[in-house]
Amino acid sequence: MFVTHLECAGCGKQFDPHQVAQLCPVCGRPLLVKYDLPRVKANLTKEDLASRPHNLWRYRELLPLADISHAVSLGEVMTPLIPLSKLAAELSVAEFYLKDEGLNPGGTFKSRGAAVGVSRAKELGVKTLAMPTNGNAGGAWAIYSAKAGINAYIVMPTGAPAITRSECAIAGAKLFLVNGLISDAGKIVSKAIKRHGWMDASTLKEPYRIEGKKTMGLEIVEQLKWQVPDVIIYPTGGGVGIIGIYKALQELRELGWIGEKLPRLVAVQAAGCAPIVEAWRRRRKESEFWPDSATVAFGINVPKALGDFLVLDALYQTDGCAVAVTDDEILSSQAEMARTEGLFICPEGAATLAAARQLRAAGWIKPHERVVLLNTGSGLKYPDTVRAEAPVLQPDDELPLEG
Amino acid sequence: MFVTHLECAGCGKQFDPHQVAQLCPVCGRPLLVKYDLPRVKANLTKEDLASRPHNLWRYRELLPLADISHAVSLGEVMTPLIPLSKLAAELSVAEFYLKDEGLNPGGTFKSRGAAVGVSRAKELGVKTLAMPTNGNAGGAWAIYSAKAGINAYIVMPTGAPAITRSECAIAGAKLFLVNGLISDAGKIVSKAIKRHGWMDASTLKEPYRIEGKKTMGLEIVEQLKWQVPDVIIYPTGGGVGIIGIYKALQELRELGWIGEKLPRLVAVQAAGCAPIVEAWRRRRKESEFWPDSATVAFGINVPKALGDFLVLDALYQTDGCAVAVTDDEILSSQAEMARTEGLFICPEGAATLAAARQLRAAGWIKPHERVVLLNTGSGLKYPDTVRAEAPVLQPDDELPLEG
Repeated sequence: MFVTHLECAGCGKQFDPHQVAQLCPVCGRPLLVKYDLPRVKANLTKEDLASRPHNLWRYRELLPLADISHAVSLGEVMTPLIPLSKLAAELSVAEFYLKDEGLNPGGTFKSRGAAVGVSRAKELGVKTLAMPTNGNAGGAWAIYSAKAGINAYIVMPTGAPAITRSECAIAGAKLFLVNGLISDAGKIVSKAIKRHGWMDASTLKEPYRIEGKKTMGLEIVEQLKWQVPDVIIYPTGGGVGIIGIYKALQELRELGWIGEKLPRLVAVQAAGCAPIVEAWRRRRKESEFWPDSATVAFGINVPKALGDFLVLDALYQTDGCAVAVTDDEILSSQAEMARTEGLFICPEGAATLAAARQLRAAGWIKPHERVVLLNTGSGLKYPDTVRAEAPVLQPDDELPLEG
Repeated sequence: MFVTHLECAGCGKQFDPHQVAQLCPVCGRPLLVKYDLPRVKANLTKEDLASRPHNLWRYRELLPLADISHAVSLGEVMTPLIPLSKLAAELSVAEFYLKDEGLNPGGTFKSRGAAVGVSRAKELGVKTLAMPTNGNAGGAWAIYSAKAGINAYIVMPTGAPAITRSECAIAGAKLFLVNGLISDAGKIVSKAIKRHGWMDASTLKEPYRIEGKKTMGLEIVEQLKWQVPDVIIYPTGGGVGIIGIYKALQELRELGWIGEKLPRLVAVQAAGCAPIVEAWRRRRKESEFWPDSATVAFGINVPKALGDFLVLDALYQTDGCAVAVTDDEILSSQAEMARTEGLFICPEGAATLAAARQLRAAGWIKPHERVVLLNTGSGLKYPDTVRAEAPVLQPDDELPLEG
């Protein structure tokens, strides 16, 4: 293992990586995993990767497992980076890609965090974990916990996507609903953890989920043959993905596998829940709680993210930006992506196309640039965002068409 | 292109592969694509594949495209062959795998047939196609047609999974429902095709869908390092997948990439719709229409398959068998797969686990054998097969647990 220590993203204090860790006991901020990157560099070349499995475990030197054979796997794949040829022409962008996380086990990017988080939890001897969720993370941690033999307690709002309940239930997780928001679920989980001594798998309250999400950044750069794109656009709720991608880019730079210049990172939020956008506009280091948040893109309905300061830092450090898009823009972008490119993406992912359109129109994205949209999940998990009305025929009818 | 001709699976008559072809105009049976395998062998080695993209297009010499750059792609991946370690121990089988087709675009194996079928249709200049479907094939052909710019008319029973309507609708297909079965949808499509001159994309009524499905067999063998398993268990409705896998095995044998011995192929059907099982028991060459068919596994509710004689031939030629499983067995196997292995598979896929258990108990599968289950799609497309009841809490509640 190339991990040296855990380090608080707030106060910088260092901690032992060989035992279960949660938030920094000093300042309450998230812990980040630190690696001996010079030693990684001496032990691994880009060329070594060519013959490895096409999934996130190929980056094992940059992952926190003591023994890669401890990986809890549900058949992860290297998700595709799909050229959007028609939309590139329409928006007038030189290179336009969708990183499609809908092809992960469970249909969302959450499986990356769960794969690494659960694997490390198992390696550290965890028997029971608990977490609040807006649905998809709960589903992902439930299925990986089932494979690992870990008990999972999952609490989600009654409004979370119904299919994510099915995932938790069929995988044998202990599932509870709450008449409220994810923050209410979080309070219930916190009390139970204190009482029972379980591991807290809440967003950023354990350090390994970021390491899983980081592999999205590693894959994008490897898939572009170790060149960085100019812009990566990311739908931002809790922000673990964008934090992970930024961490990946920093590590690749330190390894000398990419140059100094990083992609401009863009955080997209829904107009009905845009605390990061608001903070970015004011050049603040942290966001403020967004009251009465509402959006069809349930996964980014996060009024105040624990890692907001890390997201904002990533935007500032990369000359990125934050953009709000309306639910109407989200839904029309979702339909446009399916009609033109054949890709049925989730509303959160569709928000990135709406943002790209705004940024291109404003000249912030230039015609010669290479832009990557990150789709966090499959549209299959969101049946309610699509109106599918169709004529109903009788067996002896003909198709009601002219001609 | 290494295709030499199309050949009728019934009467053996040969046809030109360079124009749109449907059923054999002589005898009404499906056409199969034939390749110049000696020339493929001279031009391609197993080692050549190592550096190619990890998706079905890697087998381009065994696919029917004149130019691989014409491939219509939605980011296909080589789907994982997942070791089922806990179930292997429980059933006492030496090697036990799930080939998980749930990670395809659209969440099912149907995307393989659509990828190759739509690509070839586009290459041949098709502007409009139409098809009846039980849902998933329609969704797959809708999204690939959207990418290809082909008009797709899709007719499905009102009882087909709701999410597949959403797929068709959002991708811009012309969607119609019918108060009846897929056979009723088929009649409506046939009339429209005759009238409008569209391409008929119905199961086995064009020769290229099989070629896409064939790649499941190619991948399984390559993933096992060019060794064949002892048994492959496949949920059988229209049967294109098992026909395709058998065709793949025959081609690999002719290339000399595998030995003479083929895996025993097993067709699994639901007890409520088991025409192939019945025909196999009587050693018939064809099945009879199964009246009043019913099963929770909607995708294998096919009372009489056009390719039944090809499925039965594959079973007889490989010393395979056909097995019926009840809906109760299907649903309990689906739950067991999720609880033990963390895999949320579709009911059709779950039928293969129920069949494996039967065949192991009967001694037909031996303890030393290597068995592959084929899961045709993600459980995410079947929310109704899972009961997900959970206690509803108020924000100030505690988790209702003892201790």
